[in-house]
Amino acid sequence: MYRAPVEEIIHTLRVTAGLDAALEEGRFGDLSGDLVDAIVEEAGRFASTRVAPLLEVGDKHGTPLKDGEVTTPPGWKEVYREWIDGGWNALTGPEEFGGQGLPMMLAIATFEMWNSGSMAFGIGPTLTLGAIEALEAHAADDLRQLYLPKLVSGEWMGTMNLTEPQAGSDVGALRTRAERAEDGTYRIFGSKIFITYGEHDLTDNIVHLVLARLPDAPQGTKGISLFLVPKVLVNKDGSLGARNDVFCGGVEHKMGIHGSPTCTMIYGDGFAKDREPGAVGWLIGEENRGLACMFTMMNNARLAVGIQGVAVAETAYQKALAYAEDRRQMRAPGWKGEGMSPIVEHPDVQRNLLTMKGLTGAARAIAYACAHAIDMAKTGEGDEARFWSDRANLLTPVAKAFSTDIGVDVASIGIQVHGGMGYIEETGAAQLLRDARIAPIYEGTNGIQAIDLVQRKLSLAGGQHFAGYIAELREVAEAVNASNSIEFGETAKRLFDGLDDLAEAGSWLQAAIAAGRVSDAFAGATPFLRLFGLAAGATYLAKAAVGGNNAGRSALARFFAENLLAETAALKDRVIHGAASLLAARTALS
Amino acid sequence: MYRAPVEEIIHTLRVTAGLDAALEEGRFGDLSGDLVDAIVEEAGRFASTRVAPLLEVGDKHGTPLKDGEVTTPPGWKEVYREWIDGGWNALTGPEEFGGQGLPMMLAIATFEMWNSGSMAFGIGPTLTLGAIEALEAHAADDLRQLYLPKLVSGEWMGTMNLTEPQAGSDVGALRTRAERAEDGTYRIFGSKIFITYGEHDLTDNIVHLVLARLPDAPQGTKGISLFLVPKVLVNKDGSLGARNDVFCGGVEHKMGIHGSPTCTMIYGDGFAKDREPGAVGWLIGEENRGLACMFTMMNNARLAVGIQGVAVAETAYQKALAYAEDRRQMRAPGWKGEGMSPIVEHPDVQRNLLTMKGLTGAARAIAYACAHAIDMAKTGEGDEARFWSDRANLLTPVAKAFSTDIGVDVASIGIQVHGGMGYIEETGAAQLLRDARIAPIYEGTNGIQAIDLVQRKLSLAGGQHFAGYIAELREVAEAVNASNSIEFGETAKRLFDGLDDLAEAGSWLQAAIAAGRVSDAFAGATPFLRLFGLAAGATYLAKAAVGGNNAGRSALARFFAENLLAETAALKDRVIHGAASLLAARTALS
Repeated sequence: MYRAPVEEIIHTLRVTAGLDAALEEGRFGDLSGDLVDAIVEEAGRFASTRVAPLLEVGDKHGTPLKDGEVTTPPGWKEVYREWIDGGWNALTGPEEFGGQGLPMMLAIATFEMWNSGSMAFGIGPTLTLGAIEALEAHAADDLRQLYLPKLVSGEWMGTMNLTEPQAGSDVGALRTRAERAEDGTYRIFGSKIFITYGEHDLTDNIVHLVLARLPDAPQGTKGISLFLVPKVLVNKDGSLGARNDVFCGGVEHKMGIHGSPTCTMIYGDGFAKDREPGAVGWLIGEENRGLACMFTMMNNARLAVGIQGVAVAETAYQKALAYAEDRRQMRAPGWKGEGMSPIVEHPDVQRNLLTMKGLTGAARAIAYACAHAIDMAKTGEGDEARFWSDRANLLTPVAKAFSTDIGVDVASIGIQVHGGMGYIEETGAAQLLRDARIAPIYEGTNGIQAIDLVQRKLSLAGGQHFAGYIAELREVAEAVNASNSIEFGETAKRLFDGLDDLAEAGSWLQAAIAAGRVSDAFAGATPFLRLFGLAAGATYLAKAAVGGNNAGRSALARFFAENLLAETAALKDRVIHGAASLLAARTALS
Repeated sequence: MYRAPVEEIIHTLRVTAGLDAALEEGRFGDLSGDLVDAIVEEAGRFASTRVAPLLEVGDKHGTPLKDGEVTTPPGWKEVYREWIDGGWNALTGPEEFGGQGLPMMLAIATFEMWNSGSMAFGIGPTLTLGAIEALEAHAADDLRQLYLPKLVSGEWMGTMNLTEPQAGSDVGALRTRAERAEDGTYRIFGSKIFITYGEHDLTDNIVHLVLARLPDAPQGTKGISLFLVPKVLVNKDGSLGARNDVFCGGVEHKMGIHGSPTCTMIYGDGFAKDREPGAVGWLIGEENRGLACMFTMMNNARLAVGIQGVAVAETAYQKALAYAEDRRQMRAPGWKGEGMSPIVEHPDVQRNLLTMKGLTGAARAIAYACAHAIDMAKTGEGDEARFWSDRANLLTPVAKAFSTDIGVDVASIGIQVHGGMGYIEETGAAQLLRDARIAPIYEGTNGIQAIDLVQRKLSLAGGQHFAGYIAELREVAEAVNASNSIEFGETAKRLFDGLDDLAEAGSWLQAAIAAGRVSDAFAGATPFLRLFGLAAGATYLAKAAVGGNNAGRSALARFFAENLLAETAALKDRVIHGAASLLAARTALS
């Protein structure tokens, strides 16, 4: 069973990702390091004792749909209620609406723990957070007053409604339509698919944020507007009124996260017979500017999905390590004990476990660094805010894609460590891979993230932001070098090499994009993102270890640098030399 | 739906893996190239039209156990009957017992197709084949006469009973006991787990091969004997007699291959109340020499499991390609068509599909080359037979582990190509990953295979066999180089580099083993096996293309060489420089 790695999370937040420095600058009012520790510890306790027991029951029971109502698995409602009563949903919400206004870093750290407990449970509140951000930034004041207090507390949950059968990665292709009503509201007609927590019984109301198209809207992404469509209409005093014309038409049968209802949502199909047809919606932001509003919530949702990769990897690692310490088979080389050795003593199993732990720690640090940048941007001004906003934008696709890719890798290695038991569902290792497998897909596939990184993020600040980031990472390698610590082995040299590969591949891509060689650049996008994640992650692991006095951390940083980082050369090669053979091979696909 | 890639299979068999040359030497009697083609085509038809429809129904229905009886999914019995009536089970069986005596290469090629249709279906006959081999090589004549005709025809199926809860990778730890009876038979007591097709309703009888320990046996692997234990006792005339005291105590709830019953088998628990307790067994080979007999079947079973990795990868590729050609999202760079382009036009999707196809083709060629070596050893004599036996031994762990690793990788990429649809079970892509995930585990985990390769296979013929194999592969690179074909790009150079990495890493490991630095060698085993697979696979893809006139094949070989092969440098580095940091990092595991 999952036990929150509280010390590791705190160290990554405060030392590696920069929270301590930000606290010293007084960016977060009277938030102190001690309070950070206390919050993480308390969240860790809740995640380990209350959320983690939901993991298996969620997988087994799923979320059946009957007569338009979705039932969450046994115990989920109670834990959700306890969870919001503990104030966990309100952690980062605006203080004006009852939130605690804490930094995004704490949100992400706690998200990690909820999702380690159960990804299917953890994903729900992520969407509420996105809805809060969109409403806070773009909604009219009366809507904010009416909805935000209850979304912040968690009394109601939120959803994001983008996808339609023909509009997945290409959201501009959506067809759901919105018509203007005489009272200034809108009527929404159409259906959406893959709506996470689109219908459930955890809360009395569900606040759907829906992308739709007005009759006179321009084509494509410039004709999309964002609407708030509550499941139950809300009276002016905040009490619940009539049922709105939005219903769940089906729940998907998925590979994993069975506890998370993935719904088809049908708007304006006249199920609410007592009224005019159409789901009543309220415009958020301006007409035809919906995509900009949606990006507000999508960016942070991407980071939140990234942390799911870290979360499931952490759980998989803990499970595999516990098994490897317990299970005895054969005698490892050098084993001096009685009889068979625990399999953790076998070098090949150590490689598996260290790979799991190294990738998890690297991805965690990247995700926390991204959260840090979001916090710095929010608490900064002018050039500084722009700098940190660029940093958040640069790191978001990496935090999403690298973390969720390694989430799948690590969960799969975790099965392998269990041998035959890993394939038996009751062991629980298989569920982690089934759960993890969604994260590289939703909130923009990892291919889309890689293209975003190459096409839009490398050019931030005229390309200087990326260069500056690498310079910062090089400082860490310098510090490792200067430490002269024997336990780092060749870490510094390896970091320099990896960062050189990152810089070189990045420059090549910047040049390709600048020259309009888009296919060449896109062909290298996925290897580049992985290269970015490995090089940055290795550097953060070293940063976590350097200057400290923790043998485990320096040994892990060294293992990562000397075993996993060597891949960067091949990835750089793929970026720079791979496109020609890739683009020439269309003929081989048949 | 799967369509057998008949042309690719034939080309890989005949050209790449060397069947044509062996046919020319007259090694297989009157078997001709035309007959090979006809057999592959006919098997392909059966696999595509009869086996493939079992895939989904197997996953949904599983194999429920009730009152000791296991029911296979609807339609399975009929297809199995048709399949044996078609003579497919008897393809390679000894002619003396009704088999067709065809080469192992054809067995492996057809296994690929059955398993592409449905891994859960395909695994059953694999075990029968193993039982046939063990009986043919080691059983007394009366047992051979009684059992082999029906095992060869497929009227009865076979199983392998090795694993016990405390004895997985370490088979020497098994506790199932055998007692000598006065009539020369034995009584078996104990239980076995993870027994594939241990109980089912496809055949009237099931022939269990069971490892057990005599009361006076030495400890460990030198005290293990192999017994034949039929589900139903067989009268001297071959008719069925009384039920034997072996029963299925449970069927596992697995991540995938739900159509394949994975059973706990209980021997001698007295369920057959009308007789003395103990399951009646017959010794195969000599007492305490059971492991040697078991290795006869295990080696080929490892290759057969390897081909499962190829098989599921092929199905995943076909499925992903079909989806990518149909699904339209956004406009790919350079897309000139109307509206959105099929996603196959996007470079990042092409990378995914080419990676899938390249890895599948590479693994197929390695597996077929291994089968070729088995055939050459069987049809050769003296030094030649020894040479080919070494070759089969060298390639078996690679054919098992590399193929099943890429099976998981390719199935996972296949999900990714489908986007959100990939995560929905009805799409079928998720099942392929769930099915594929067992293959790196059973028949010796891939970690065990890597250790076998490093510890026992690199030293064959005093290390010269490995060196000679690389020299053969270099000849292919030379041929590519000499072809001067523009479509190969840098393939030759890349192959030389990859083979140098393989040679260098192999020499380092040979030296480490020779010097007794076992931990160092084992630490590098898994990266070395992958390096071996990539370098050999890339070379085989080039061999398939060179001299031919097929633009797709040379483009694929080039893509593999220029995009995937670059990884060998990092893998070599991990082998040679990785152990120090790995072994120093035990402290990081907590």
